[in-house]
Amino acid sequence: MLHGADYNPEQWEKYPEVLEEDIRLMKLANCNVMSVGIFSWAKLEPEEATFTFEWMDKLLDTFHENGIFAFLATPSGARPAWMSEKYPEVLRVEANRVRNLHGLRHNHCYTSPVYRDKVTTMNTKLAERYAEHPAVIGWHVSNEYGGECHCDYCQEAFRDWLKEKYQTLDALNDAWWTTFWSHTYSSWAQVESPAPHGESMVHGLNLDWKRFVTHQTLDFYRHEVKPLKAVKPEMPATANFMELFEPLNYAKMADDIDIISWDSYPLWHDTSDPSYRAAYTAMNHDWFRSLKDGQPFLLMESTPSLTNWQPISKLKKPGMHNLSSLQAVAHGSDSVQYFQWRKSRGSSEKFHGAVVDHLGSEHNRVFQEVKELGENLSQLDEVVGTTVDAEVAIIFDTENRWAVNDSQGPRNSGVHYERTVTEHYQAFWEQGIAVDVIDSEKDLSKYKVVVAPMLYMVREGVGENMEKFVKNGGTFVTTYWSGIVNETDLCFLGGFPGPLRKTLGIWSEEIDALYDGQTNHVKVIGNNELGLSGEYQAKELCDLIHLEGAQALAQYGSDFYAGRPALTVNDFGQGKAYYIASRNDRSFHKEFFEKLADQAGLTRATGGTLPVGVSAQVRTDGENDYLFLMNFSGESQDITLAEGEYQDHVTGEAVSGNVTLTSYDVKVLKK
Amino acid sequence: MLHGADYNPEQWEKYPEVLEEDIRLMKLANCNVMSVGIFSWAKLEPEEATFTFEWMDKLLDTFHENGIFAFLATPSGARPAWMSEKYPEVLRVEANRVRNLHGLRHNHCYTSPVYRDKVTTMNTKLAERYAEHPAVIGWHVSNEYGGECHCDYCQEAFRDWLKEKYQTLDALNDAWWTTFWSHTYSSWAQVESPAPHGESMVHGLNLDWKRFVTHQTLDFYRHEVKPLKAVKPEMPATANFMELFEPLNYAKMADDIDIISWDSYPLWHDTSDPSYRAAYTAMNHDWFRSLKDGQPFLLMESTPSLTNWQPISKLKKPGMHNLSSLQAVAHGSDSVQYFQWRKSRGSSEKFHGAVVDHLGSEHNRVFQEVKELGENLSQLDEVVGTTVDAEVAIIFDTENRWAVNDSQGPRNSGVHYERTVTEHYQAFWEQGIAVDVIDSEKDLSKYKVVVAPMLYMVREGVGENMEKFVKNGGTFVTTYWSGIVNETDLCFLGGFPGPLRKTLGIWSEEIDALYDGQTNHVKVIGNNELGLSGEYQAKELCDLIHLEGAQALAQYGSDFYAGRPALTVNDFGQGKAYYIASRNDRSFHKEFFEKLADQAGLTRATGGTLPVGVSAQVRTDGENDYLFLMNFSGESQDITLAEGEYQDHVTGEAVSGNVTLTSYDVKVLKK
Amino acid sequence: MLHGADYNPEQWEKYPEVLEEDIRLMKLANCNVMSVGIFSWAKLEPEEATFTFEWMDKLLDTFHENGIFAFLATPSGARPAWMSEKYPEVLRVEANRVRNLHGLRHNHCYTSPVYRDKVTTMNTKLAERYAEHPAVIGWHVSNEYGGECHCDYCQEAFRDWLKEKYQTLDALNDAWWTTFWSHTYSSWAQVESPAPHGESMVHGLNLDWKRFVTHQTLDFYRHEVKPLKAVKPEMPATANFMELFEPLNYAKMADDIDIISWDSYPLWHDTSDPSYRAAYTAMNHDWFRSLKDGQPFLLMESTPSLTNWQPISKLKKPGMHNLSSLQAVAHGSDSVQYFQWRKSRGSSEKFHGAVVDHLGSEHNRVFQEVKELGENLSQLDEVVGTTVDAEVAIIFDTENRWAVNDSQGPRNSGVHYERTVTEHYQAFWEQGIAVDVIDSEKDLSKYKVVVAPMLYMVREGVGENMEKFVKNGGTFVTTYWSGIVNETDLCFLGGFPGPLRKTLGIWSEEIDALYDGQTNHVKVIGNNELGLSGEYQAKELCDLIHLEGAQALAQYGSDFYAGRPALTVNDFGQGKAYYIASRNDRSFHKEFFEKLADQAGLTRATGGTLPVGVSAQVRTDGENDYLFLMNFSGESQDITLAEGEYQDHVTGEAVSGNVTLTSYDVKVLKK
Repeated sequence: MLHGADYNPEQWEKYPEVLEEDIRLMKLANCNVMSVGIFSWAKLEPEEATFTFEWMDKLLDTFHENGIFAFLATPSGARPAWMSEKYPEVLRVEANRVRNLHGLRHNHCYTSPVYRDKVTTMNTKLAERYAEHPAVIGWHVSNEYGGECHCDYCQEAFRDWLKEKYQTLDALNDAWWTTFWSHTYSSWAQVESPAPHGESMVHGLNLDWKRFVTHQTLDFYRHEVKPLKAVKPEMPATANFMELFEPLNYAKMADDIDIISWDSYPLWHDTSDPSYRAAYTAMNHDWFRSLKDGQPFLLMESTPSLTNWQPISKLKKPGMHNLSSLQAVAHGSDSVQYFQWRKSRGSSEKFHGAVVDHLGSEHNRVFQEVKELGENLSQLDEVVGTTVDAEVAIIFDTENRWAVNDSQGPRNSGVHYERTVTEHYQAFWEQGIAVDVIDSEKDLSKYKVVVAPMLYMVREGVGENMEKFVKNGGTFVTTYWSGIVNETDLCFLGGFPGPLRKTLGIWSEEIDALYDGQTNHVKVIGNNELGLSGEYQAKELCDLIHLEGAQALAQYGSDFYAGRPALTVNDFGQGKAYYIASRNDRSFHKEFFEKLADQAGLTRATGGTLPVGVSAQVRTDGENDYLFLMNFSGESQDITLAEGEYQDHVTGEAVSGNVTLTSYDVKVLKK
Repeated sequence: MLHGADYNPEQWEKYPEVLEEDIRLMKLANCNVMSVGIFSWAKLEPEEATFTFEWMDKLLDTFHENGIFAFLATPSGARPAWMSEKYPEVLRVEANRVRNLHGLRHNHCYTSPVYRDKVTTMNTKLAERYAEHPAVIGWHVSNEYGGECHCDYCQEAFRDWLKEKYQTLDALNDAWWTTFWSHTYSSWAQVESPAPHGESMVHGLNLDWKRFVTHQTLDFYRHEVKPLKAVKPEMPATANFMELFEPLNYAKMADDIDIISWDSYPLWHDTSDPSYRAAYTAMNHDWFRSLKDGQPFLLMESTPSLTNWQPISKLKKPGMHNLSSLQAVAHGSDSVQYFQWRKSRGSSEKFHGAVVDHLGSEHNRVFQEVKELGENLSQLDEVVGTTVDAEVAIIFDTENRWAVNDSQGPRNSGVHYERTVTEHYQAFWEQGIAVDVIDSEKDLSKYKVVVAPMLYMVREGVGENMEKFVKNGGTFVTTYWSGIVNETDLCFLGGFPGPLRKTLGIWSEEIDALYDGQTNHVKVIGNNELGLSGEYQAKELCDLIHLEGAQALAQYGSDFYAGRPALTVNDFGQGKAYYIASRNDRSFHKEFFEKLADQAGLTRATGGTLPVGVSAQVRTDGENDYLFLMNFSGESQDITLAEGEYQDHVTGEAVSGNVTLTSYDVKVLKK
Repeated sequence: MLHGADYNPEQWEKYPEVLEEDIRLMKLANCNVMSVGIFSWAKLEPEEATFTFEWMDKLLDTFHENGIFAFLATPSGARPAWMSEKYPEVLRVEANRVRNLHGLRHNHCYTSPVYRDKVTTMNTKLAERYAEHPAVIGWHVSNEYGGECHCDYCQEAFRDWLKEKYQTLDALNDAWWTTFWSHTYSSWAQVESPAPHGESMVHGLNLDWKRFVTHQTLDFYRHEVKPLKAVKPEMPATANFMELFEPLNYAKMADDIDIISWDSYPLWHDTSDPSYRAAYTAMNHDWFRSLKDGQPFLLMESTPSLTNWQPISKLKKPGMHNLSSLQAVAHGSDSVQYFQWRKSRGSSEKFHGAVVDHLGSEHNRVFQEVKELGENLSQLDEVVGTTVDAEVAIIFDTENRWAVNDSQGPRNSGVHYERTVTEHYQAFWEQGIAVDVIDSEKDLSKYKVVVAPMLYMVREGVGENMEKFVKNGGTFVTTYWSGIVNETDLCFLGGFPGPLRKTLGIWSEEIDALYDGQTNHVKVIGNNELGLSGEYQAKELCDLIHLEGAQALAQYGSDFYAGRPALTVNDFGQGKAYYIASRNDRSFHKEFFEKLADQAGLTRATGGTLPVGVSAQVRTDGENDYLFLMNFSGESQDITLAEGEYQDHVTGEAVSGNVTLTSYDVKVLKK
């Protein structure tokens, strides 16, 4: 189990005592890995073609001598100033077509030949010098890829990508429906990336541009990795990802990356419901674990205390650091790493939490909590490599997200795709039911239940995929505003939800949007097959549907569509397909998904229900189960375990029956 | 009575079955007119000088064969991409002096010689080919003119326009009071359009720039129409206008346009008071009808269901489509037309309501409601050509609006001119009293009552116009913040309200602005001549005035100006002039304008009072009166008719005494 | 005592009767000084090298004949259009690197050689022609300096300034901690001013850029003054400053300016607490008086009624103009001057309050209140030259303000430095205790109490300054988030509050930020030495500290840090050092600072407590005390005077014991 941080000793060159003290403190804190070289280009190549690797040699040697491992970064996250000065083409051009000045980070053109050359040279030198260094256990490629460039190089690359995709302008014009507002292209040169002062409302263009940005970023990643792999193909590489990040489609990048890693900064103790915050964070972990089909990931960055860039930098209450870190492990992480080891003395992130504060010693609360966590982690080595076995998949599809957020539709003042997915996820999290969070094109055969909230875009094959899943006995749940458009945002003709209509056995005629504050009611129909008994509140979106084989389980209670179906189920093949027609409150999610879990025979981590704010999650290697019980509620809670013998993985005590968790406590039990 | 929609079959070129199906559906929906060719340039001239009119030939022929008429559009609303590529000068330059890229719509320079040439060529070809086509009944020139260009051509044209207006720089400097902040121009070349990074606070410049934009847009319209009229002078032309549109002064354009038309998209069922929403919409209809002195207008666009570009796309409840459409007719429209006939499959407006949904058939609620409305409309042919006979005029003056909104004054956080005009309008709407909504320079002799809320700008002749109106027996009502500046935003010297002071018999010494939440009270004075008895709340703006011949009807109740006049009347010549010194609540408007209507002997459509949310409006040809009773309240309402015999125009039944309107019901009664 | 206004008769050139009438009105209003020539460049030099001083000759001669004095302005606040047209380099370049167009005011490059030449020529001519004119009593240099330019000239000047400061790039890189994100500069040419599309988050760069802007503005001021002083060195010069203005560090400019003056526009009668508004305004006065160590300042601009550029232009209630003006005098002003004498007829500030309204006569409330104030001021000539003798200093440090507002830290959603300083100031204002508002580098030896809220930045020597102050018997108070960074925003290592730690006897381990709505409690510890007995609410920021010699006076009441110290005092040398760990409510400030004042033996203007909303302030020449009693509460209030004999300076009556002030009343009592 890895425990460590980003480390930039080159910031402390003028403070020569720091490195030695840091090594002492790393060992004291039970840290065994550091990410080094991130943003170090100016120290590695201070002038063009002048390389100064000596400090890195010393650093890695010192690590090795002290039993500390390293992820070695490629420094492409930020260029040195001399490169911007000499080769302005490396600077990014924003959508307004103005080239940036040197500054901030990233801010490079990923198409620029000069920048690519410079990266190849640097990465080749790093690989040749350090690939075989005994301290180095993997490549940390660049840092938090993101952003886009609209320079002429990128425009050309975009056009080439489009030619490859569509072959003819006519096909492109059809796919983007350019006849609308006379946007028909008559030459490839007329195609430009979206711009605030140019084209911004051709959704097919917007979508393809986002696809191209992912493509080109991945191409740049491949370009970065090539010289690294040339030297030592078996050295794994990662590129750290970000929370619910929208600009890149990580699902398209996962195959190329050896190990998924991500940077997690939850807003613990904010003013939202603690269960929502914890479930939201859990969903992110599950998303990253699911990117490579359950392969454990790395928590590459987190903060031991607080960030400095969120609106409110709130301290973690005692215990929360341990809980937050082990939550990552519970959901599949094989590491807990921080940004950063030592707070920088100046510049923009100097107040970002770190293991070593400006204080410079171990004598503060944060260091002590890191140290204790380090001890706990050191007892979890056997969890490394195990995974989570989920019977449920939630579809969280990035292309769908791009499309549903971009397309002007029923609720421009807030369509809330991400929140809606999270609310569906939370209903399982509250039950201790493991969930995979996946792209809509993934194989569904391993799941009992698939939930696809707002599956607005149904790409080629996806409808068939769902249909087959249900036919073979699966339970499929989707909602209003699903089955609307194809891969280029062209609407399905002949009736919504398009390719899902047959599976669901309903037809959606029209959808009503409600203003904030307006509501409808959803009343269950007596003796419905799921045994629902409540009455729920609907808001924001109400779909007006007709039954085409499905049966209604609930109906609207007011407005002109009172009495029309609000929740339906269709028996289809061996399975069932549910349609939730309205956006409902939490009480609906709670009751509906509990009944559904019972009906589908889903496994709950503790076998039964959980107190509010408590999460239960299992990692397993097929033989051994590691049950993580986590209390986010802020109060003491009692949990009843399923029958069986458990062993507390920290204390070694045998446990059964009831377990008490104090506030922010976490227990790892081995079954 | 016309019933139809915008239609773009060229979007469906690859779906050859669509046209035939559409013709079937048009007839089924009782549609008799389509607007075609809007945004069709890329299909009419796919490459420079290559024209492809065949599809349009076929379309118009098919229409003719099926008894459907067409408004034929000039396609200048959007250029083809090849034109932007070859002649960048056709692209608009924004106020920041950056030239746009190709994209969106409009986005052209209306001064560009190249663009004007291209428009002439296109419009000449259209006129020559289609002016005599039996299906074509009028020209739909461009689409929703708007926007401005700051390119060098436009700067030159602006300077020429200013030279023509002011003759000398000295006159311009005086008119704009440029000595302030040393802005004196010493050469014409120094004059530039307003810019966020240049001049933005010389109000005279801002006003003249807006005037120039209207001038240049009108000049472009004339340029568009010229080749059309050259072929067939008697073919009428229209240019569709927009709701309370501020950037253009439509009053200056109305003479050149044969038929006024506009595009109406009310926010029915939003969270505001239904009466306010209905009155606001009615005021727009009245404004457009008044532009050509009562000549009926066309409702050129509306939605049969919902839009896709408003914050919330709310469905119209059953009946509201009929009610909303007949409201337009009640206020003077001789058509009900939609954007659009068939929902486009892709691009930015694919979810904008249409007669034919993506479903593609007649089997949905929206189509059925359109069909029913079509039946109703087909029985109203004799209403065509009749108009509304108003005894009341509300001054809604675009130049005043520009000036009062731009000039930094008493309440920069919200001076609310448009809302204030609407509130005054609503007081008559609630009584069933017909209103014209006019520019301040219009002839007033036909009116009994003229209301001019916040007539901040009083241009040359306007004060004299009002004075003569009152002298001759009219009742004039104005408010605080009137009579402040002349045509170039120079303040009147010697005492406000300047040219209105004598007529009103008061002097405004100073004006107090109240923060949101702060209020004053307005108390009527016992035995006042209007018989007012209430006490009202004042907010936002309180004018401190002195009587100069007028008498006070009410006074302030608090603050240091308690006891000073808050409402006055001046007997002047044969008439009366009222001054409302404070911004008051709705209860004031209700009582004051009811008493005023009684005093002035105004005609109410039903002779008496109306339930809340019910509107009554009369169209007449002088002999026959068509009384429209419209229920916007969302509940059933009983209306008492004036004495006389009425015939229900749909059922043919005789009606008298009481009439009941169910929710969203509308009745047309012929007297 | 000066009483007057800005006056621009050149706006009224075409209204020749205006000047004579204005002279009559000035005398009637008891005005004795006018500021002329502000923004008059286009009238003084209408074409390049053509000068027209005749109107100014006549103006000043007329003043002299009528006993009116003048501040003569240099016209650099706005250039004539011909200069922008011929020499674009004089136009300012914004941070986005786009050069402005001609317009607005200022908007010049203060580095441009051309602009500097033009200023020298103009100022030389003004000095040669008018320095000896008997009406002229001082130079009004430019107007409200502000803004910055990013052109190439300014970039070069910035680099030169940096070279002078740091000598080597290595020193600059260290000071700015550029190693973070690889920002190391390897050539001076790489250094550029901050930009939204370039570097924006290197805090050391941001700080030094702001310092450079002050430096360059001061350099421009010196350039302006040089030709003026060359002709008549003893003629005083001022440059009018602005309310709590952040972009310039006035403390660095004060030595070069002979007399401080400022422009005050309080939001009287807004929705905030009247005491807060009055205290905030008083604090500004004290800040400007303290800039030159107590030397009286000039109220160079104020409004006799309202402004036209604030969100709400609210009238001053009767009496408030007198009260507001005498408040300035009470805090050290030797003048009451207005923007402006006569409302301009057009352009952006035509509705800004003035002595002479568009009405054009003396027959309105505003003129009469100005006249009465003029009479009152004419009786206060002996107050001129006296000052305020403060025993308390509040540190309000502009560089600290820049740093604490720019640096991303515990509360990016609102760190509220200015409000916090004001709240501390208000606690003394409510007690009638005089306060100086000073930079952290000022000499502290004259004070009994020094309060430094949020002294985030402690520059070289400042910590030592505070330490010496306490050692010698002073009482020092500081708060959370103090002692964090040095002069270039590098954090202190080894424990916060860095250089203040020893003096305060505490160590700050970490700081918690609370979301809006979250609170903690502060409970006093029984028998604390100050005698505090209350319980207070803490919000927003709670510092978690450890005692290192200090004793706790209060502790937190909740969250995981309940029981930890929230208020401490350290006996150090002869003095005491208090640390307020949390941001507390007003009840804390009230009780704490009253007890502290008692303990430190501070002098209260009336010897005792004051009713809420009443302020008492003393000006003195060491022998005579002038006690200003001012009632901002909006209600009548009784004040008990300290023992002694007082004379009402207006009525001449003897006063002792109790004094009653009606609403907005002010009394000046001579002791």
